[in-house]
Amino acid sequence: MLQSKLFPKTRKEPPREAESINHKLLVRGGFIDQLMAGSWTLLPLGWRVVSRINQIIREEMNAIGGQEMLMPLLHPRSIWGETGRWGSTKDNPLGAKEIMYQFKDMRGREYALSFTHEEIVMDLLRKHIRSYQDLPVAVYHFSTKFRNEPRARSGILRGREFMMKDLYSAHTTEADLMEYYDQVKEAYSKIFTRLGFDFRITESGGGVFTDKTTHEFQVLAEGGEDTIFYCDACGWGENREIFEGKAGERCPSCKKGKTIRAQAIEVGNIFPLGTWYSEKMNVSYTDADGRQKPVWFASYGIGSTRVLGASVEVSHDESGIIWYPQVAPFDVHLIELKAQNSKLKTDPKEIYKRLSEAGIEVLWDDRDKSAGEKFAEADLIGIPVRLVVSKETAENIEWKRRNSKKTELLSLRQAIDRVKKMH
Amino acid sequence: MLQSKLFPKTRKEPPREAESINHKLLVRGGFIDQLMAGSWTLLPLGWRVVSRINQIIREEMNAIGGQEMLMPLLHPRSIWGETGRWGSTKDNPLGAKEIMYQFKDMRGREYALSFTHEEIVMDLLRKHIRSYQDLPVAVYHFSTKFRNEPRARSGILRGREFMMKDLYSAHTTEADLMEYYDQVKEAYSKIFTRLGFDFRITESGGGVFTDKTTHEFQVLAEGGEDTIFYCDACGWGENREIFEGKAGERCPSCKKGKTIRAQAIEVGNIFPLGTWYSEKMNVSYTDADGRQKPVWFASYGIGSTRVLGASVEVSHDESGIIWYPQVAPFDVHLIELKAQNSKLKTDPKEIYKRLSEAGIEVLWDDRDKSAGEKFAEADLIGIPVRLVVSKETAENIEWKRRNSKKTELLSLRQAIDRVKKMH
Repeated sequence: MLQSKLFPKTRKEPPREAESINHKLLVRGGFIDQLMAGSWTLLPLGWRVVSRINQIIREEMNAIGGQEMLMPLLHPRSIWGETGRWGSTKDNPLGAKEIMYQFKDMRGREYALSFTHEEIVMDLLRKHIRSYQDLPVAVYHFSTKFRNEPRARSGILRGREFMMKDLYSAHTTEADLMEYYDQVKEAYSKIFTRLGFDFRITESGGGVFTDKTTHEFQVLAEGGEDTIFYCDACGWGENREIFEGKAGERCPSCKKGKTIRAQAIEVGNIFPLGTWYSEKMNVSYTDADGRQKPVWFASYGIGSTRVLGASVEVSHDESGIIWYPQVAPFDVHLIELKAQNSKLKTDPKEIYKRLSEAGIEVLWDDRDKSAGEKFAEADLIGIPVRLVVSKETAENIEWKRRNSKKTELLSLRQAIDRVKKMH
Repeated sequence: MLQSKLFPKTRKEPPREAESINHKLLVRGGFIDQLMAGSWTLLPLGWRVVSRINQIIREEMNAIGGQEMLMPLLHPRSIWGETGRWGSTKDNPLGAKEIMYQFKDMRGREYALSFTHEEIVMDLLRKHIRSYQDLPVAVYHFSTKFRNEPRARSGILRGREFMMKDLYSAHTTEADLMEYYDQVKEAYSKIFTRLGFDFRITESGGGVFTDKTTHEFQVLAEGGEDTIFYCDACGWGENREIFEGKAGERCPSCKKGKTIRAQAIEVGNIFPLGTWYSEKMNVSYTDADGRQKPVWFASYGIGSTRVLGASVEVSHDESGIIWYPQVAPFDVHLIELKAQNSKLKTDPKEIYKRLSEAGIEVLWDDRDKSAGEKFAEADLIGIPVRLVVSKETAENIEWKRRNSKKTELLSLRQAIDRVKKMH
């Protein structure tokens, strides 16, 4: 795409109220725009990154039999009433009234906006599940979540409206549920590895749903809101809420490593919910002996827009974002430095065409600006590879990785091969 | 994908309240599920169709320079107040109070749910557009719209929550706007042609926005809510609201053809909105002479989920849906008829593998059911090609198009070639 056409332009200064790195850089680079506190437009560059993130998640969900669909965002009060999550009392610690957007329309009907979708999936399952032969089922969607957080903060990390992939699975037995739960845990590990994160899986309390522990996927990041403890030798990890002990002590699991305390960003979590929901909402199946039994249930979430923010928090420098190639908005930033009174030996249009034909996504800076301005903007936007065509590069192209200072002269063929190898 | 795993199963009976064909068939086939009146879950099959529809739209939007992004669904009252569309009075025929979901949260902040996005785009543009060099801009998104219709009806054709692609363009001059408007009109024609529709473009009144006429894209369909008039010889068409005359008369445009009256489903509309919004919301740019001028603006919509419903209305028979290949949930329905006490000569697993390797999307009916039951379900679901593997087909495959009664024996190679040719 031509950078002269790209909406919007970058900006030199971050918004005054911005505190976090993702907020500053994503706004300056033109990836996101704030409509109101906690509510963001994903601008063309930001949407490109989120689409790539979603595609990685989608592939791994499909690989474990997840079926993609799309559930509504506006929910009737009646369904939320069945589990008691509409209201909120001392006896009902699950009540979500504080952060659920709830309202009555002019016809007197009461609604909630999708704060999560467990109740909606349960309603769907009870309409369609009859016997053990209809199970297991695993369905997911990418959709908008609304949470009226008292304080929206940290840029796109904690919004009031955000995008989430949520997967739900239903099973005949606890054993089947736990086997699938482990598969999802593995799929999540693959996803966060593919996304380029240095992450830890931490246990957290099961709450009232289940006596099982639930798990969080935490990306190590200095600016992270969460405090976690993990072992430097084995896979053990716990979040602050359940950790008993001190950082630096022996690992309670392997007894060899040392517990490390770190700041992290929670990007995913998985919950073996058991039969709490199905009992409250009467979601049952008939087993092989004709008996009615409650469905075993679990839910699994990844915040796509939070992954966008976390990617910036863990990969940037003082000049801007450094996207990992797999989620970058473009593969290559082609920068044309116009020669005065003469034509370039290499036609940028031809290079753009050949890169595109090779399946490479290119942002082509065709604008009439100085090299300094163009390079500064390229560093801010953070595309992994910068290719410069100028009078000086003659029939070659100048290659530079965003995360390196080294430049090299390459032929177009060599440049294409190198980009291909990055994926 | 294995049909034994597909969620949910089909059902023999339509819902009692269903009146329209799309409602009956989409529910029976397991494409959609009603959460409440006017609100639908797109189940895995339905989501597959909508994804294909969206991809066709996306390609044509990108081809005319549209930039995809994603805007929020929850909007602050203040922005809707600027154009007066929050309220509704006699002086303000644009007021949308009747169908806009509006509410106050517990902290007293007032919101509307996205009934459309003109005001939100305008707010975005005024933050980022400075000079004539920043224009034109064309941005679009696929997102959820909420409209509190007094009566949700016609299955997925008129919902209270639905998916729409909306494109917005901003320009320096009326001439530039109208030139782009014509480009979009052409792109829309390509889209609806690719979707397989027999459609007409009809003029409709401009309302208070503009003295230009606006255009609707109407799919000819017996069950359609709209009445339109079009010429049987030239491209002339008008909707019922502005048509003056009688069906059967000479075409007022070419003077040769005859005006035909028909029922239709509106699947798209385009509005040259002029400067109505930009004047109300102060969205301006500086021209080459340093003068401030209002931006010229237009919006263009296609209802993705409505296209899903319209596709069924225009292509079905008494047994079920007949999907056009370009939007079908799968390319091929592979039906395995298990042989008793013997193995099939052609292993369905091998056929499934080879079809998939050829890039063909296959629903494989691996279930232990009778031929009659399987064929009836295949007809209901409506995948364009049915391939049967049974004892009788020996080393060949039985080929049948959903829209034909003819069956043929083909080799796998021949079947693959034929599927490839359909796209």
